[in-house]
Amino acid sequence: MSEIQVLFVAGTHGNEVNASWLFDHWIENPEIIDTSRCDFSVLKVIGNNAARKAGKRYLDRDLNRCFTQELLNSEIENEYEINRAKDLVDIYGVNGSQPCQIVVDCHSTTSGMGSCLVVYGRRPLDLALASLMQNSLGLPIYLHESDCSQTGFLVESWPCGFVLEIGPVPQGLLHSEIINQTKLALETCLEQIRRVKEGKAVFPERIFIHRHLRSIDYPRDLNGLPSAVIHPERQNKDWELIKSGDPLFLTPTGEIISFMGCENVIPVFINEVSYVEKNIAMSFTIKESWQVLEDWKDCLFFMIGD
Amino acid sequence: MSEIQVLFVAGTHGNEVNASWLFDHWIENPEIIDTSRCDFSVLKVIGNNAARKAGKRYLDRDLNRCFTQELLNSEIENEYEINRAKDLVDIYGVNGSQPCQIVVDCHSTTSGMGSCLVVYGRRPLDLALASLMQNSLGLPIYLHESDCSQTGFLVESWPCGFVLEIGPVPQGLLHSEIINQTKLALETCLEQIRRVKEGKAVFPERIFIHRHLRSIDYPRDLNGLPSAVIHPERQNKDWELIKSGDPLFLTPTGEIISFMGCENVIPVFINEVSYVEKNIAMSFTIKESWQVLEDWKDCLFFMIGD
Repeated sequence: MSEIQVLFVAGTHGNEVNASWLFDHWIENPEIIDTSRCDFSVLKVIGNNAARKAGKRYLDRDLNRCFTQELLNSEIENEYEINRAKDLVDIYGVNGSQPCQIVVDCHSTTSGMGSCLVVYGRRPLDLALASLMQNSLGLPIYLHESDCSQTGFLVESWPCGFVLEIGPVPQGLLHSEIINQTKLALETCLEQIRRVKEGKAVFPERIFIHRHLRSIDYPRDLNGLPSAVIHPERQNKDWELIKSGDPLFLTPTGEIISFMGCENVIPVFINEVSYVEKNIAMSFTIKESWQVLEDWKDCLFFMIGD
Repeated sequence: MSEIQVLFVAGTHGNEVNASWLFDHWIENPEIIDTSRCDFSVLKVIGNNAARKAGKRYLDRDLNRCFTQELLNSEIENEYEINRAKDLVDIYGVNGSQPCQIVVDCHSTTSGMGSCLVVYGRRPLDLALASLMQNSLGLPIYLHESDCSQTGFLVESWPCGFVLEIGPVPQGLLHSEIINQTKLALETCLEQIRRVKEGKAVFPERIFIHRHLRSIDYPRDLNGLPSAVIHPERQNKDWELIKSGDPLFLTPTGEIISFMGCENVIPVFINEVSYVEKNIAMSFTIKESWQVLEDWKDCLFFMIGD
């Protein structure tokens, strides 16, 4: 049982501008996100201000893949994002100068996913907090795991946290709905943490998880460029079941490339523009209902309860 | 009466990727846009390949503002886009090595405008061709004129042409609907030119023009950054009348900034991300019905008729 501090991060990707814009104005107008009922500190930081100023996702490499032990302990000094990752951990990490225990990393996507939470691995603290968020807002939870090609996410460097992912919105574009949804999710998170702290949190019995299975790439030509696009019947159909034989991609000559796979597969992150370079056209998940374990709740209450 | 050549340009802005992708595959698969019925040549070119490779709108300055006589005649040599503009005119201009008389410049936008044509000034050739396009596809025509802050558009360096503008789509994102709408408009354009050439074109009696009145900027803070966003009731309401008192912008604290202006105003290019740097939050137009003049048709027939 100890005092906690909560860290909100915006602009981990410089061209995801809505949360950063909200934070700028939150500094000027503290009432935008009311923290007066919170008896804990809420810190906020722009993850990648240099990339934001450049209007880019990142300068040298994706900041949200820099939080591996290998990179955090590396002696690479000439890459902006690696240094920035080290700085963020040094300042806001649990052993940092302004130690935080919970982190919410705010992102946006060009895919038509609406709002969701992303958690990494099956950490009880994350699942407990995510269950409270889902119980309040009904948001889907995407569990990213078992994907050795995508590692080093920011939230993994904190004991507890999740990514808030909101779409669809083009990169660089301010959009009132995206800002409002970000604001609502952050306010809800603070309210839930407050209730846990006061012993008043109401956990659901079960949560629904969209568990990551694998990602698939676009078909590519010999130059490595996409040779087919997302089929129009699949665009914006995130969170919807895809059945074997359903159209997946469309070639320039009108040929349909269909999904051939197992049952109960649900695609997410369909046509996220920044994932083209990561060879991800979409990720496949399976929806599962999990019991909210007493152990998860105990972990969260132990960390933040009064 | 002379042989004509038609020029299709894609990727004048490097991060508007759909038409460029279509052109790449059109080269590999000539049947994608069938030109076999055209007894004239159709040339195609990527406007700004360097910016495309960089994933940016431009490297040094907006290529689609470089076609002023001042810049085309300038001795500036160290700006990529000015050199590129000169090259395009030298190669494809009416006095170029591969002379073209008609140009279609393919763009995309993040604003929710659907497909439209943009013409610059009131050139009879443009209006005649645009009238045929509108008659075939029903597309709105945005007449850009009397705006001394925005000049030097590519199509103005050719005797006849228009911009094809399609949205909404994020920058950098391949989207089958955007590709299909581009393809349809280009095929329709070729078909109409063919009919004019054969004396079989059917012109409408009237066209509907959305005539440019003025552009307005986002409210800005002392640092020049947007201090309010497009109001959710206005986002994606391109081509719809705005009345005095209607919500226009929303501040971070929820204050509504309303439109105070004259009647019959119709906004377009609402929240186009690349116009933020041009201080344009949207452009106001007025819808007018114009008679299609015999003079326009004669000009077009004189240029391209057999």
